[in-house]
Amino acid sequence: MKIAVVRETRPAERRVALVPEQVVKLVQLGYEVAVEPAAGERALYSDDAYRDAGAEVAWGADHAATVVASVQPLERERLQRLHAGTALMSFLPTNPPDVIRAATRAKLTAFAMELIPRISRAQSMDALSSQALVAGYRAAIVAAERLPRFFPLNMTAAGTVPPAQVVVLGAGVAGLQAIATAKRLGAVVKAYDVRTAAAEEIASMGAIPIELELGTLDGPGGYAREMTPERAQLQRDLLAPYIAAADALITTAAVPGRTAPMLVSRSMVEQMKPGSVVVDLASESGGNVEGSVAGTELMIGNALVWGGANVPSQLAGPASRLYGQNIANLITLMTRNASFDPDFSDEIVAGCCVTHDGAVLHEPTRELLEGPLR
Amino acid sequence: MKIAVVRETRPAERRVALVPEQVVKLVQLGYEVAVEPAAGERALYSDDAYRDAGAEVAWGADHAATVVASVQPLERERLQRLHAGTALMSFLPTNPPDVIRAATRAKLTAFAMELIPRISRAQSMDALSSQALVAGYRAAIVAAERLPRFFPLNMTAAGTVPPAQVVVLGAGVAGLQAIATAKRLGAVVKAYDVRTAAAEEIASMGAIPIELELGTLDGPGGYAREMTPERAQLQRDLLAPYIAAADALITTAAVPGRTAPMLVSRSMVEQMKPGSVVVDLASESGGNVEGSVAGTELMIGNALVWGGANVPSQLAGPASRLYGQNIANLITLMTRNASFDPDFSDEIVAGCCVTHDGAVLHEPTRELLEGPLR
Repeated sequence: MKIAVVRETRPAERRVALVPEQVVKLVQLGYEVAVEPAAGERALYSDDAYRDAGAEVAWGADHAATVVASVQPLERERLQRLHAGTALMSFLPTNPPDVIRAATRAKLTAFAMELIPRISRAQSMDALSSQALVAGYRAAIVAAERLPRFFPLNMTAAGTVPPAQVVVLGAGVAGLQAIATAKRLGAVVKAYDVRTAAAEEIASMGAIPIELELGTLDGPGGYAREMTPERAQLQRDLLAPYIAAADALITTAAVPGRTAPMLVSRSMVEQMKPGSVVVDLASESGGNVEGSVAGTELMIGNALVWGGANVPSQLAGPASRLYGQNIANLITLMTRNASFDPDFSDEIVAGCCVTHDGAVLHEPTRELLEGPLR
Repeated sequence: MKIAVVRETRPAERRVALVPEQVVKLVQLGYEVAVEPAAGERALYSDDAYRDAGAEVAWGADHAATVVASVQPLERERLQRLHAGTALMSFLPTNPPDVIRAATRAKLTAFAMELIPRISRAQSMDALSSQALVAGYRAAIVAAERLPRFFPLNMTAAGTVPPAQVVVLGAGVAGLQAIATAKRLGAVVKAYDVRTAAAEEIASMGAIPIELELGTLDGPGGYAREMTPERAQLQRDLLAPYIAAADALITTAAVPGRTAPMLVSRSMVEQMKPGSVVVDLASESGGNVEGSVAGTELMIGNALVWGGANVPSQLAGPASRLYGQNIANLITLMTRNASFDPDFSDEIVAGCCVTHDGAVLHEPTRELLEGPLR
């Protein structure tokens, strides 16, 4: 019964799927853990730390593994080498669909971390949330570092310098963490989200909820629904004065698996003051801010616009620790009578299983790949 | 009675000597204020904002001025164009001494902002303190942004991520502000200073004073005294384990007009963990950290070492606002019966006056320029 931790191969990916302290726990559960050399290096976990925790460090760690854990999906070539029945745990976007096709053909059991249901029992496995928390912290720190003024009020012998005005759009996990961090630093924070529960959560973090004369948009799983183009335009018009008054704008509105909503147009950014900073955490999925580019800092009008690219990887150590705990908790859930034995009638297991025994079990993904059921 | 605000000419200097809100107050005191075009541009104060505050915006603002205010000392060519008796207010380092020689020859009255006495009545004019406050905030933000982990403790559904360990050396204004900012962000902060009063001040900011088995070193004006090479080495030896355990190190120990003490050797930095960050605010005056270079980020061992260069200019807006308030308060002190009429028997005026009516009044500077009194 072996868990393999692979060295991630994508250039921007610095995380690792398990960290040494989680190896200890999994060994106690009865697993062997095999880690590819330097798998944790970019997250600042050394091979020696894995060995000290009880792991074997070797190439080919995935050979005859029961579970192969990674952050990004494995390459197709690697999937073809795995034994039928091997379980995969990673983020597993459906686009491009090659990986899911290859996993199906190789009869692998693929669990997608982004499909963990948003129910309270699964919170400790919710990798979207744990990584969003990292991204939200990072967004506020990046904004503070780029802004040519203080976040906090400063009262000095030579007078008072007022605090920065920060606007956060989207108050999910990332948005709330951005709010918390900006508040810690003493900024005045206003925030907006289309969901009903958001205003209360925003206020509970000490920020001021922006109330627009618009209805709320609650979707499944605690995420927001998509909106009509007319409503989106009205929302932008109503948000414009808040954006223009902000020193820093942080946008975090993502709808899983869909293009991010364009909340802030180029002309709204152009109304910001000299020295303003915009941090767009949704750049990779199209951007909440028109013109933001993932992995790039550029000027729009007077504002520096920072587009996030794999933001959790920028704090690879803590992001890996949280992700690894999600993985370890999921493996623990699937361990019964000292064996790896996922119960496919469990809501969590069923919810995140994409492929099993040659079939695509996740219905939206199956439909995407194979078309509607005949 | 005219106050002139010049546009700074040094490339790295983004500050301006007065901001619009201070123009309003000086106009109320009976002054005309003339500002060179774009003087406030890099601190994000527009010419229009100065005009709205009652200033004239024009080249040659310093012609027939009573007071010429700047951040950096004026160039020699400009000094030669000024009328005898014009008052200068700026930072005024004695090295190189050309500017002071030129000011003496031109019979200008030069006030050096770094010589404002450290007495409570002069606190509102203390530009070293106001700018150190800006630098200390910036140091903590730079460290937080460069560190690949959280500053705060994070308790999440997927487990707990411990807070960052930050060590601050030097607990003057900059050090205390760095401590305050790192604490705001939730880091565990330990700090050390050679002065007696420091431990209590450090503790009052919520940080842990590092107590070494060494005597304290109190010097004039609330600054630290220089120490013997033997004591310096012992201090480094005793600090080494604290540095090795730190995720981020911020050094702020400067002795005005002298080379900064080397508190941290290269080999101490080499013992820091992968991902560590060092911010040296004293780089420009020789560095508290061996090998740090002002204006540069470089690696020493596993640590990223950031050397500060004109750090207050990196937050030029608030730095200018505080500096300008120092200038405005000094001008106010020197305004008697609605005229600019400095009272040279006043401790503050006498303390910061370097040249007047063709003589170098500040004794250490005079000695430096002219040798000991015959």
